[in-house]
Amino acid sequence: MKNYKKRDFPVDKVRRFLEPGPIVLISSQYKSETNIMTLGWQTVISFEPSLVTCFIWDQNYSYEMIRKSKECVINVPESHLLDTVVGIGNSTGSEIDKFEQFELTKVASKKVKAPMIKECYANFECKLYDAKLIKTYSLFVFEVVKAHVATEPKYPKTVHYTGDGVFMISGEHLSRKKQFRPECL
Amino acid sequence: MKNYKKRDFPVDKVRRFLEPGPIVLISSQYKSETNIMTLGWQTVISFEPSLVTCFIWDQNYSYEMIRKSKECVINVPESHLLDTVVGIGNSTGSEIDKFEQFELTKVASKKVKAPMIKECYANFECKLYDAKLIKTYSLFVFEVVKAHVATEPKYPKTVHYTGDGVFMISGEHLSRKKQFRPECL
Repeated sequence: MKNYKKRDFPVDKVRRFLEPGPIVLISSQYKSETNIMTLGWQTVISFEPSLVTCFIWDQNYSYEMIRKSKECVINVPESHLLDTVVGIGNSTGSEIDKFEQFELTKVASKKVKAPMIKECYANFECKLYDAKLIKTYSLFVFEVVKAHVATEPKYPKTVHYTGDGVFMISGEHLSRKKQFRPECL
Repeated sequence: MKNYKKRDFPVDKVRRFLEPGPIVLISSQYKSETNIMTLGWQTVISFEPSLVTCFIWDQNYSYEMIRKSKECVINVPESHLLDTVVGIGNSTGSEIDKFEQFELTKVASKKVKAPMIKECYANFECKLYDAKLIKTYSLFVFEVVKAHVATEPKYPKTVHYTGDGVFMISGEHLSRKKQFRPECL
């Protein structure tokens, strides 16, 4: 298991890790209970404030926990956690304690009660910014209020879901910065 | 340039290509004018109907064209088009004809007026399903009404944006299907 050293990261820059579209692990806490779910349906929608829209199905055990606590942590796992990601997505917090079952370590967050997952590359503490889209589209608009990111590697090796049990693993990174207008970066 | 052979693809299965989070090219037509924009901020939110939520900034030239025509095509480019993707994202339809400038070929869609881009791996014809989230969040909820996908490769080599001019290129695919509960696939 990797033992990441993490640093504070600017919340308006978390697109670096979320915009490529990885599977993330959402950790939550409601009262004394904690849970973890997998999520592939999220998108950045703003830098300042740092907003991320997540589709969370109302049949997920985490749905009510997050709706009521109005908080969560978005954790970015690397590919060595793929089997853990699959296990978390194929079990329910109504039956098991996922932190215990999958031997994941809770780390206290700074600004929310939901715990961070130590074994993940990055952890983004989130507060519910807008609940209005939950009822019609199961869309939670979160604000990233604090970000913790591993000091290396610069880019994580993330897992991306295609359906049917098949994952894409992130590949090489290429810069085209010189071809960008400054205002388009 | 690749010369894809394409087939009809089930609209409820387009997650295979969109859920991993690639940069897409949105083609649009309003009256006789066509345009193309790059987009990285989208997420699948439903299989049936096949819904995709796209954040389209109101400063994009395509914004009004799509809002008024209520249609677009989501095109999935492969990595050999990376420089074209960058060029499209760093220019505006108010100044140039992007199909002409970037030597892309229009193919008539079946169910919408907006043209498909021949040089892309997949083309998803979309109709605006819900305009209510545009005003508050610039979120367009589209329904994919017709899908055209290259017969090979099975998975495209997509480009994913991390900000700062840097792109991640999709890597290998791994199946974990045997570890899935049938209802979770």
